[in-house]
Amino acid sequence: MWAQREFALEPRSRGFHLITREVVAAVPELDRVGTGLLHLLILHTSASLALNENASPDVRVDLESWFNEAVRVDAPRWRHTLEGPDDMPAHVKSVLIGPSLTLPVASGSLRLGTWQGIYLCEHRDRGGARRIVATLSGE
Amino acid sequence: MWAQREFALEPRSRGFHLITREVVAAVPELDRVGTGLLHLLILHTSASLALNENASPDVRVDLESWFNEAVRVDAPRWRHTLEGPDDMPAHVKSVLIGPSLTLPVASGSLRLGTWQGIYLCEHRDRGGARRIVATLSGE
Amino acid sequence: MWAQREFALEPRSRGFHLITREVVAAVPELDRVGTGLLHLLILHTSASLALNENASPDVRVDLESWFNEAVRVDAPRWRHTLEGPDDMPAHVKSVLIGPSLTLPVASGSLRLGTWQGIYLCEHRDRGGARRIVATLSGE
Repeated sequence: MWAQREFALEPRSRGFHLITREVVAAVPELDRVGTGLLHLLILHTSASLALNENASPDVRVDLESWFNEAVRVDAPRWRHTLEGPDDMPAHVKSVLIGPSLTLPVASGSLRLGTWQGIYLCEHRDRGGARRIVATLSGE
Repeated sequence: MWAQREFALEPRSRGFHLITREVVAAVPELDRVGTGLLHLLILHTSASLALNENASPDVRVDLESWFNEAVRVDAPRWRHTLEGPDDMPAHVKSVLIGPSLTLPVASGSLRLGTWQGIYLCEHRDRGGARRIVATLSGE
Repeated sequence: MWAQREFALEPRSRGFHLITREVVAAVPELDRVGTGLLHLLILHTSASLALNENASPDVRVDLESWFNEAVRVDAPRWRHTLEGPDDMPAHVKSVLIGPSLTLPVASGSLRLGTWQGIYLCEHRDRGGARRIVATLSGE
């Protein structure tokens, strides 16, 4: 079976945010899949999706601070500055982390590790409501 | 349905290049898929695939300059130098960006965001014609 | 057809390790797939999966040294230090490299480039036996 859903996430501030529940709620067909895969693509070039620690909020704070230091807003190199100082660093972070995730489905649920959760990585100061296409396949 | 195509991209200079049209043209079965996924793998370890801004060429120039500074050709650390000074940095960039993309298909076309385009990230000075395997599944 | 297998890798020391053979051996259904995809997810947030050079061991040593310098154990910024000094850098590396791979299958085998091999990227000093979910689909 195949199913595809498009939905918008609630707007988040810049940083790393857990969105596992929001994603699962947006794909009600999940519980009809015994074995399969869920693919997620964020339809933007200045935000990304990751899978990481779902417990300690400090991990998400530390991720944001590492990426801010690695990809600096004030680097003199940037040519693409028209859309604001946070835009070009957002593109670099999006290329580093990536815009999509593919996740296994088993017995009607995502099959993730105990400590894994889906992150929205919001790289803009005001990114707004980010749109995701979810594509589910399986049997 | 399943389809698989293998094709070579035109050789590009080192840097980030938009290849959306070249990829779509290489997978004519796309328009027979209502809902599905297109998977792309570049068969090399010194180039990668990304999805990012399809309009401003400055974004691609800034990406190339950020990655060149982050992964330096002249780092004293490199042991693997046999294949030239641009080779080991290319492997690091390829691991950071990744060799594959999975993209949703809807109504016979790639379902991407308005500003998203497929990039060939060529990390070698003379990478030649890079080969891609495209695997399409859907209904 | 769909098949899903869950298995544990042999424990490895911190660093980048070739695991192609171990993965292929864990998915015996591979040889029944003419055209398809194999998806791998590592069920952890401090290790990752990559696809890179399968010949020179120096490439894997250089990757480890680059990532160690880029994501420093002793950065004063880390808040999340409860699980040891190698833990938060492991989360950052895992987000940079990613926890999953999707690979094409053709005529019963993985269709990779000549020089491509699957890496376990072990970011902890003592990560133990890492678990992987492998999901195979195809015809």
